Formats: sequence, C-alpha cells, structure tokens
Amino acid sequence: MIASPYLKSNPNLYIFLPLFYMVWEDAVLTPSEIKKIREIIDLQDWLNPEERKFLLEQINPASPPSSDELKNWLTEIQQVRSQLSADTKDSLVDIGIRLASLHSTSSTISSATRQSLTHLEEVLGIISQEAAFLFHPEARKTITSQYSTQHTFDVTTLNRILEGRQSSTIKKVKAIISDPEFQYIDTDNLSDYREKVLHWCKLLAAQGLGSLAFPKEYGGGGDMEAYFTAMETLSYHDLSLVIKFGVQFGLFGMSVYFLGTETHHKKYLKAIGSLELPGCFAMTETGHGSNVKGILTTATYDHQKKSFVVDTPLPEARKEYIGNAACHGQMATVFAKMIVDGKDYGVSAFLVPLRDKNGKTLPGVTIKDCGRKMGLNGVDNGVIYFDQVVIPGENLLNRYADISSEGKFTSPISSDNRRFFTMLGTLVGGRIGIPRAGLSAVKSGLTIAIRYGDRRKQFGPEGGSEVPILNYRTHQRRLMPLLANAYALHFSLQYLTSRFLNRKEDEMQEIEALAAGLKSFSTWNTTQTLQECRECCGGKGYLSENRIERLKNDTDVFTTFEGDNTVLMQLVAKSRLTEFKQEFANMNLFGILNYVTDQAKTSITEKNPFAVRNTSEEHLLDPEFQLHAFRYRERDILISAAKRLKRHIDDGMDSFDAFNVAQHHLVNVGFAYVERVILEKFIEQVNQTNDQGCKSVLKKLCDLFALSQIDKNKGWYLEQGYLEGVKTKAIRKLINQLCWDIRQEAVPLTDAFKIPESCLAAPIAR
Amino acid sequence: MIASPYLKSNPNLYIFLPLFYMVWEDAVLTPSEIKKIREIIDLQDWLNPEERKFLLEQINPASPPSSDELKNWLTEIQQVRSQLSADTKDSLVDIGIRLASLHSTSSTISSATRQSLTHLEEVLGIISQEAAFLFHPEARKTITSQYSTQHTFDVTTLNRILEGRQSSTIKKVKAIISDPEFQYIDTDNLSDYREKVLHWCKLLAAQGLGSLAFPKEYGGGGDMEAYFTAMETLSYHDLSLVIKFGVQFGLFGMSVYFLGTETHHKKYLKAIGSLELPGCFAMTETGHGSNVKGILTTATYDHQKKSFVVDTPLPEARKEYIGNAACHGQMATVFAKMIVDGKDYGVSAFLVPLRDKNGKTLPGVTIKDCGRKMGLNGVDNGVIYFDQVVIPGENLLNRYADISSEGKFTSPISSDNRRFFTMLGTLVGGRIGIPRAGLSAVKSGLTIAIRYGDRRKQFGPEGGSEVPILNYRTHQRRLMPLLANAYALHFSLQYLTSRFLNRKEDEMQEIEALAAGLKSFSTWNTTQTLQECRECCGGKGYLSENRIERLKNDTDVFTTFEGDNTVLMQLVAKSRLTEFKQEFANMNLFGILNYVTDQAKTSITEKNPFAVRNTSEEHLLDPEFQLHAFRYRERDILISAAKRLKRHIDDGMDSFDAFNVAQHHLVNVGFAYVERVILEKFIEQVNQTNDQGCKSVLKKLCDLFALSQIDKNKGWYLEQGYLEGVKTKAIRKLINQLCWDIRQEAVPLTDAFKIPESCLAAPIAR
Repeated sequence: MIASPYLKSNPNLYIFLPLFYMVWEDAVLTPSEIKKIREIIDLQDWLNPEERKFLLEQINPASPPSSDELKNWLTEIQQVRSQLSADTKDSLVDIGIRLASLHSTSSTISSATRQSLTHLEEVLGIISQEAAFLFHPEARKTITSQYSTQHTFDVTTLNRILEGRQSSTIKKVKAIISDPEFQYIDTDNLSDYREKVLHWCKLLAAQGLGSLAFPKEYGGGGDMEAYFTAMETLSYHDLSLVIKFGVQFGLFGMSVYFLGTETHHKKYLKAIGSLELPGCFAMTETGHGSNVKGILTTATYDHQKKSFVVDTPLPEARKEYIGNAACHGQMATVFAKMIVDGKDYGVSAFLVPLRDKNGKTLPGVTIKDCGRKMGLNGVDNGVIYFDQVVIPGENLLNRYADISSEGKFTSPISSDNRRFFTMLGTLVGGRIGIPRAGLSAVKSGLTIAIRYGDRRKQFGPEGGSEVPILNYRTHQRRLMPLLANAYALHFSLQYLTSRFLNRKEDEMQEIEALAAGLKSFSTWNTTQTLQECRECCGGKGYLSENRIERLKNDTDVFTTFEGDNTVLMQLVAKSRLTEFKQEFANMNLFGILNYVTDQAKTSITEKNPFAVRNTSEEHLLDPEFQLHAFRYRERDILISAAKRLKRHIDDGMDSFDAFNVAQHHLVNVGFAYVERVILEKFIEQVNQTNDQGCKSVLKKLCDLFALSQIDKNKGWYLEQGYLEGVKTKAIRKLINQLCWDIRQEAVPLTDAFKIPESCLAAPIAR
Repeated sequence: MIASPYLKSNPNLYIFLPLFYMVWEDAVLTPSEIKKIREIIDLQDWLNPEERKFLLEQINPASPPSSDELKNWLTEIQQVRSQLSADTKDSLVDIGIRLASLHSTSSTISSATRQSLTHLEEVLGIISQEAAFLFHPEARKTITSQYSTQHTFDVTTLNRILEGRQSSTIKKVKAIISDPEFQYIDTDNLSDYREKVLHWCKLLAAQGLGSLAFPKEYGGGGDMEAYFTAMETLSYHDLSLVIKFGVQFGLFGMSVYFLGTETHHKKYLKAIGSLELPGCFAMTETGHGSNVKGILTTATYDHQKKSFVVDTPLPEARKEYIGNAACHGQMATVFAKMIVDGKDYGVSAFLVPLRDKNGKTLPGVTIKDCGRKMGLNGVDNGVIYFDQVVIPGENLLNRYADISSEGKFTSPISSDNRRFFTMLGTLVGGRIGIPRAGLSAVKSGLTIAIRYGDRRKQFGPEGGSEVPILNYRTHQRRLMPLLANAYALHFSLQYLTSRFLNRKEDEMQEIEALAAGLKSFSTWNTTQTLQECRECCGGKGYLSENRIERLKNDTDVFTTFEGDNTVLMQLVAKSRLTEFKQEFANMNLFGILNYVTDQAKTSITEKNPFAVRNTSEEHLLDPEFQLHAFRYRERDILISAAKRLKRHIDDGMDSFDAFNVAQHHLVNVGFAYVERVILEKFIEQVNQTNDQGCKSVLKKLCDLFALSQIDKNKGWYLEQGYLEGVKTKAIRKLINQLCWDIRQEAVPLTDAFKIPESCLAAPIAR
C-alpha cells in the first residue's frame, strides 16, 4: 500500500500525513486511540467513501506501512521544511494543510476540519506546537542546548583568594609533585607501589617538606601552618603518599615533638624530618579503636634496670592498622598503660624500636602485614605484637608523665583520664590535616567530573544535536551543591587551622570540638562528593585511569581515621552541652532547665508570622535570614537535647542509657553547630572579598550552601514551624536557579583550584 | 599535702572527699566553679578555720593532688563500696556521709549541710544519682549493656519463605560455590584474576548453569526463572564471576536468543551455554552510553556479496567497556546502524567474530584493554574498533529486521525508533539480574556488618564493661533500616521477576517501567548500604580481607550498568505520565488538566484533620495509613509534574526545556512510584505469611521500611500538609523503637539469608 500515488491524486488527504507519520513513528496506538481516530475520520463529511477507506487503512495495526514507506512519508512532509521555523510553531494539522496546499492550489480545508483534527492531536497527547521540529529539527534552538560555560570572574584572582598568604608554599609543593619523578605508577603490585611511595616521601623530605613544622633548631622550618598547607597540596597527588607523609612527619614526628621533651627533640627530630628514621604511630589496638582510653598494651617500669617492658598481653591488644609498620618503620611511638610499682597510671607514650637499620625486625617484636585495603595501598599498614620488649627509661615521652629519680610516677596532671585527654589534645592537628587532605581530593574529583560534564554530550531535543550533560538539571543538582560545599569547607578549614595555630590554653576545648565537628562534616562530605562524581561520570568514572575511584577509595577511611565520625559528632555534642552548662555557671541545673524553658518560649516568638512565609528572593538571599535559621536550629536542637537528657535522668534512667536514647539527636546537635560555623565563615569571606567578580560568584556559592543545608533540614524546620511550606518550596526553586546559574561558572570555579594537570591525570578531564 | 591523715583526725571532712575526687578526676574547674565551691565551703559554719583552710587547699588549681594521692582517695572512698548498689542511687554527698560515718560513729551531718552540698553538685553539673557507680562500677547494670541477640522466629522457616519454590536451584548453586575450587584468590595480578574467573565460569557452565535459560532443544534448561535465581545466588560469591557469567550467558546468549532466529539458535546457543564460544555484548560506544539510540557504528549491506561491512567511523564510535573483550571473547553481538542502499534503518544487532580459537584477534578488529577499574577486575573489559570488517549476511540477528531476497530491508516494525526500543525491551532481563545481584551483595555486607556489630564492643558506662556497638542507637539507625530495605527489595524483585516471566505483550511498557524503577532504587540502595556497612565496621571494614570494600566497589557500577539510574528514573516518570494520559483517553489534554485540578481539590479533603495529627502507634503501624501515605504521594507528585509541564509548555517553553526544568521533580515521580510498589508487595508478603514468628518479624521490618520512607520524605509531607509536626515526630520516635526491637533479631535475620560461610569469608564475620 503505497500512499504517495493516491495522495497525489487526492491532495487534500495530505492533511493527514504528518499525523499518521507521527502515529507510526513514535507512539504505540491503544485500541481506544484507534477508535478515536476512526471516529474523527468518520466525522469529516468532505471525504468520499473511498478516501475514508484509504485513510482507515493507513491506521490499521494489522497492516503497518513498511519502513521504506515511512521514510518516504517523511521525505514528502519535509518538502514543506523551508516553511517551518522555530517561531511558527505549526501543529501537525497546520503542516498537513501546508503540504496539501503544496500539492493543490485549490486545497480547501475548512476551519471545522482544522479544529476537529487539532482535537485529535490533543487526544493523542501530542504537543502540537513542537510538531514542526520533527520535520525540521535544525530549526530547534532550546535554551538547554545553548547553555554553556562563561567567565564572569578572574580565575587567577579567585585562586589568590583561596591560597591566601600560603601561596609560595603551595607553588613550591605543586612544582615538586608536577616533576616527572612523581608520575603515577600502575598499582598491580603492592610492593612496588609501597616502595614508590617511600621513594616519593624521601624526595619530599629532601626538599625540607617533612620537617616544615619542627623547630628550626632541629633542622625544621618552624612553620606549622606551612606544614598543613603542604599536606593539603600534596593531596592533589597520590593519597597514599599523603598518608605515608602524615604518618612519618605528622603522627610520628609530632608525637615526639608534643609528647616528648628536649632530649627526644635533640635525639630524633632531625632524623625523623629527613626520613633517616622511618617511624610509626602505634595507638589503635584491635580491641580498641575509637575508645583508645581502653587500650591494653602495658609498659611496666623496672626501676633497677631503669627500663620499661612493653608487652601485648592479649591478641586483641595488638597494635592494628599501623601505617609504615608492615615494611619500613624502624621505631614506633607506642601508647601503653604505664605500670609503676604494680599500679596502673593510665596511657602514656613510649618510643619502641621495631627494626634495625637493615630492616630486620628486632627480638620480641612481631609484625604482620594488613594486606590489601580498600585504598591507600601505597601505605604499608601492619599489625604489631610486643613480647616483653625492653626499652630504656628515657624512651618514655615524658612531657606529661615521668619517673622520678626514686622510681615514682610523677605528672603535672593528677588524673589519668585528664592526662590522657590532654595528650590527645596536643595531637588534634591530625583532625585538621585529614579533612584538608580530603578536601583536596574533593577538589580533584569535582574538577574531573565538572570538566567531563561540560564536554560530555548525551541526548538532546528530538532530532537536534546532543546536549552537555552538565546542562541537565539533575546533573547540576548533583554537582553544584557539592561545589558550594567545597568552597564553604575551604574557608572554614582555614579558620580551624588558624584557631589551632593561635590557640590559648583555655580555648582548647572549643578548638577540639570544632576540629572534631569539621573533621566529621568534611570527611563525610568527601565520601559523598566523590561517590557522586563517580556516578556522574558513568562508566568513565569507574575506570581507574580517570582517578575518581582512587580518590574515593583512598579517602573513604577518612571518616574512620582520627576517630569515627559518629563518635566524634557525639563528642562535639557533649562539649556543646558542657559549654551550655558553663554559660549558666551561676544557676543550678533546675535553674538552667527553667531558663531553657523560657528560651523555648522566646524562640517561638522569634518565628514571626511574616518571616515564616516570606518567599521573596531578597529575603532568602539575605545572610541575616540564613544565619538566623542556622543559629535558631543550633540553639533549639541543643536545648531540646539538654531537656531530653534531663527528663530521662529525672525519670530514673541511667545516664549512659539516657545518652544512648538521645544519641541520634546528639549527632544532630553536632551537625547544627558545625553547619552554623561553616556558614558564618563563608559569609565573612564574601564580605571581605573586594574583587567584584569573585565576590559575586562566592556569594552565589554561599547562598547555595546556605539554602541547600536548610533544604536538607527542611523537615525539621517545618516540624518546628520555623518555615512554612510556601517558603521551603521557594527555597527549593531558588536552589535550582542557583545551580543553573553556577553551572555556567562551574568550570572556571574548578580552574581556580589550579590543580596541576599531571596530578589530575584523568583522560576525561584533559 | 596528704589528705588521709588529716581526714582521719577530722572524720567529718570525709563528706567532701567523693566530691573532691570527682572534681579532680574528671572535670576541668572553671574559675566561677571554684568560686562557687569556696562560697559553699564558707557557708558551712560547722567547720573550724583550720578545716576550712584545709578544704580550700584541696581545690587549689595551683597545687593539685599527686596521681598517687588521687588513687589513694579512690581507695579510701571504695571502703564504702559494699554499701553502694545500683538501687540506692547515692549522691556524692550521700557517699561522703557514709564515709564519714565509717570513720566516726559520732559523725553528725545536718540536713542543711547535706542540702547545701547537694546544691553544689548540681552547680557542677554532676548527675548525682549515678555517683555511686564511680566507686562501684560493677554494680551498674544499664539497659544498653544488657541488650543482646534473641531468637523470636525460626531461621529455617524464614529462609524457606525467602527462597520460595527456587530452593533446589539455590541449594545447588550454593553447593557449587562452596566447593574448594571456588576459594577466593588474592587480586594482586589482573591477569591471574581474570583467568581464575574464566575458569570458574567454565565450571559453572559444566554444571549446566550457563544454559539454564536456553530452550531444552539447544541443550538448555528451559528455565528462565532458575537462571535469575542462579545469578542472584552466585552473587554471594565473587561479583566479577557474576558479571562475566552474565555477559556470556545473559547478554551475549540472550541477545542471540531474543534477537536472532532459529538458524542462530541452532548454530550458537549450545556453544554459548557451554562456554565453548566466549562472547561479548557490544552495544555501548564511547560517545553513546545512556543514549544508545545515537550509536554511530555502521553495518553496510552489500547485496552482491550478501554480506555486511561493520565499521567504526569515528574514535568516539568505538565500542567501550565491553566485558569479555580484552582477553577471552571470540565473537560479539554488535549493535550498529544498518545501512541498505545508502539508507539508514536504525540500530540492529550483528554477530561479529573477534578472535580465532587460539585467541588471535581477527583482521580489521582492534581491541584495547580498559585496564584496572574501581571493581570487577576479574572481568576483562575492552574497547573494540572495527575497520571495515566483513561478515556474512546471516550474521544479522534477524528477528526484528531482515534483508529480503531482493536485497531490501524488511521489518515487522515500520519505525526505526520503535524497532530499536522493542529490541531493547526483550533485553530488559538485565535490569532484573543486576538489582538481584546487587541485593545479594547487600545481604553479604549486612551479614558481615551486623555480626561484627553484635560482637564488637566499644565504650560503655564509666568503669563498666564495654557494650556491643550494635546496642548503640546511631549504629542501629544506620543499619536496621537498610536491613528492612533488603527484605523489602527481596520481595519486590521477586515480584518483578514473576511479572517479567509471565509478561504479555500489552504489559511490556509497565514491566519496563517497573524494571527501570526497581533497578534504580535497588542499585542506589546497594551503594548506600555497602558504604554504610564499610563505615560501620571502621578500620576492619577498610581491609580487603573483610570483603565489604570489594562488595562495594564491585557493585558500584550497577548504578550505571543497564542505563544510568537518573536517566532510568526519568524514563519511569515519562512512562507514568503516559499511563496517566491513557487513563483518560477520552478526554483531551485540557480535560485532563481540569480533572487534575479537581483531583487536587479532592486530595486536600483526603487530608482529614484528625489523621494528619494522629500519632497513635496503632495508626502509624496500620498498613492502611502507610499505603495511603505512599499512594497519596505518588499520585500528587505525578499530577503536579503533569501540571508543571503543561504550564511551561502553555507558556511557550520548548518541551525539551520544560522537561529539563522539571527533571528533578520527574526523578521524584519515579521514586514515589517504586516506593509504593515495594511497600505493596511487602505488605502482601506479611499478610500471606502463616508462621507467626516470621510474620511478626516481617511486619516489624515492613513497618520500619514504610516509616523510614515517610521520614525520608517528611519535608514533602509537611509541605503538603499531609502530616503535621507532631506526627512526623511520633514517626521518628517509632522508627527508633523499631530499630531497637529489630536489633535483637538482626543476627537471625541475616542468618536467614543462609549465605555460605566460605563465600562470606570475612574474618570479622566468623
């Protein structure tokens, strides 16, 4: 059944051709749809019976047109292509009318006909105005297809803002890791990889990077800030390198520096900084990871020999996951319970030799290899057992605990508990280094995924050319808020670092809470971001050559390192509750409770009925509204946690149980606190930025961060009546708009990280 | 300053000792706290000046007690240990009074003294009732410490419910993969690993598992259901094995079976099922992953030679990520645009030989190795280029497209588009196999993490013994909802499988949407669950020996496999919109819009003011409420998406742009639909379970699934006014309670999966 000859002789029937083409090309006709088409054909009284029969044949599912016929129909219809454009928005019927006119100057289609056929299009669910594009796709110009990367700010200026006064250290480190010596190797072989990483560490030590934080008198750089910067910058390269570097110079080196005294500094710091003495940090035991206070390794003092005997009393007391232990470590800072005269004085730190210069394990020391891990396979983690290993008394790192000449235990801190936590406090730097390293991995992942999303094209308007996947709203919603998070965390981790570097004794509790909270928030963000980047790059993201999987797997343990995030967030909450207590030192607990109840009343009045429904863009983008929302949440959630705990305990619940019942709530206390700090610091950064281009893009990122967090917590805000539905919907809409806006600047925003191309390495990001 | 001698001679002062011990042992005293203590000491008029001076000395921060003194204080206080028990709940002052009485029968402490000192405890924020435990920790019995695994149902019965009628296939496959031949190998070497996986596949083929789904006349088992079951059960073992197995017997085999005709079945199926002919499924191209319709490889027909010329016209048209290609594949089903007489007839499938029997690549074929990947490294993925490769005409898989004897293209389906999607539809089995494989990985991960959580102890009440981490509420909140998801998905994936096996032509659209939606929901759930399991096992979860990282990394690409999840969820949404359209086939679009508006009005009345605030447990656990909430959301979100699209298009927006603007919304349409189906099937399963123990635990899991989803979407429910804050809070509380309850049964619930121990393999799960 060839349509064309019959149509040529009955040109009015051309009016049906576009409709029929559409029906066969795209849709599956249901019986009721066929019935409807039949009815409408029947209604056309201008058709003669033969024409009617012909038309009905064309839509008979039992005798479809052949593929060639269908192609011919298209060719026929495209004769009117030149009459179609994006502006005319012809329906299929309009196109049919044009086609009929082309074949017969006397074609007379009544407006009734036109109307009834248009009605048919509607029944079939055809978007009429777009029909023209089916036959003339080149004419179609969608906003989505035309959207692309723009430069609205100066990348170098933004990079300067990010780098701040650490620019020269960053440049130096980038130059080193861009050297051909630092080319990545394939990781097939665990042993090759570990040796390579050791070699890289030696090169870094030779450049003075290892001893950056040590005092100048021991060959160091005396610049703790530069050390953090170096670690962060190294994290654009292989993460195994960073962790090996951090174990040697950070954990091992800093434990000697902070827990030891001058003797130790003189004797060891230089050799540690130069990597002449590779060492370990042996704190965690198999049985005690987060709860380090409970470790079971003992160091028993023998006054006669002026020595300690270090011992692993039980298999679960073995030191576990110890970096640098499986292959290279020659000495370890070992945390053990100090036993003097049969009395247990809690945890102290000791320097225990593990291997001789030739790498041979010393008597009494047994080391096993942890083997392959999810990531960080360039780091040789091991398990260590001590069997009555004798070390000289001077190997006690004796800043906080010592032995008197009479062989008695002495310490400036009476309580074993408090001494231990004071020691841990000096090592809080690890909770700064880790999130900063994780953030660099995030920046690498985002750079790769965003560049790929900007170039990778997939799908597009029917018949038109394909569209960069970053132009799709879901893709933007996946990546843009994470880009905003990366910027937000950059500034708050800088703030944390500076608080740590300028710390005073009485700020330590606050700084520890800040570090614990930011470490948890940041490292969870790292895991989430890199997972999203992997998925956003599809199969390409799964290939190792594109590095996202390595970044993800290497950093995955960061949520466990330096304290499990969930445990840390509870520490933050407890610290906040304590501050809360101190704030009202002159009231008793009942007084506080009353105060709290009053507060709760006040905070209800804070929810003024206009504000909870204010959906104006000006209001939603006002830092005052954003900060108020964050602070309100922080305060309210802390107060309700305090009240809940109090209520449970008053009801006779054991406090341990009460804290357990409220645990989920306490984690949220931690989050609310950290989120508020991050927002404050980001807003400060925006305010102090002078360059207008940079200020404007940072403001957008800051808004996206703020509104995304509110949106994430919108269930809570709605529950509290702090926001109403109209407002949360307006926020969602604004987030979509901000994602759409920032997408244009996303590539330059990742360019501003200035990650060396040799470090990025991913073929899809080239 | 030794306290004891002075106290011995002034025994009334013992009353202060527990308080002072507490102060030094635990807290950091702030200046205002010290001031308060001083004030209260000053108030005690029964003290003489010397005693007062002595007491003030004890709290002087400049002269703390020595460690030994502090230990002595403790020993002294513990003299009254026998008088302390969990029931008495003595405050520190009470203990002090007991202590004073012990040293002096004439000790007279007035109630005023007692009161003022108790007030001091409050100021210091000490939880008085618990003080006793500090000195007698063994007496402390917290609920959290005593909670443990219980068996409330019969594990074998639940396992029978899970396995259903596929029990014998499952037993057979488990027996095979538990054989010593299937012992895991270390993956250091890519090539060794790949050969091992090939070897395993051959063993499975020899057992008849490869050809389970093929018709009996070609040596197959004729049992598609058993094939899916086998694949799911194999997924308790190495995931590379499963994917290699799936590529050979599922993708390659099924493409020959479904897209080919009898000639192909006769010639190839037996050799495929026995793995005599290892093959590939070459659909995806570098430039076209999700948008397969756009592939560029060509197969040009030459009527004279009755052959096709297969060619890769551009680098981005190379076949990418092709499993079995890098090493072992000898033939591939290649998807290419068929060109006949210079005309492009869209995508068809062709059998193209790649290598000879000796593994030598054939002329015109170039294969590159994709190298190391995030996971699945036992599968040899490769890139394939064709340079004018000539294949005989009979190598066209000609079920849907053929060449007539005159050399013309023929097909039962006129439209190239529809033909392609019909071909894809036959391959929907992949979207069933993948989520089922992912679910097995989830079951393995949960078994490992839950067993570990049940045994691993960390932290505990002060001084008391440590607590299994699964007793902590946050740990439960992390794992229990995921356990509920695993059960929920088990039943809905069985439902999907049975719909597919019993499919009728006119159900295909629905089944495809169901498969796309469940595949997306399930595989995202797989990624999320295994990530959570990794983190919940801390450092142990990071070690490869404990298998969670492998499970995570191997399944990570499942969210990309068989169609990117985000893209698939949009397909689901579009399909739902179409069904919506068909539901009202007799109305035109405006009619639908009016109907929709009426619906919206009705649905507001569905929100009856009592129900939105009903917080009774009976109501929240009522399947009717749960289903109503899910269905309400599904319907409302679909209607609002339709309205939004209509509004944008009416406003003159291009439909492609309109769909892009609504993209995030459309993904939610997909989620709401899938979630409703999962809940329906889970509720059905609970209802039809006869065994009371199993019914009861399944009901709890079903409730947890339902309420967790509502909680996840609570922002939306609150926005809509379908739930009020009191109700969402009650739901959160009930979720915590369900997690607490299910935790007791969590180990037996994972035991019911009956995963072979040799497959689990993780030392932490032994």
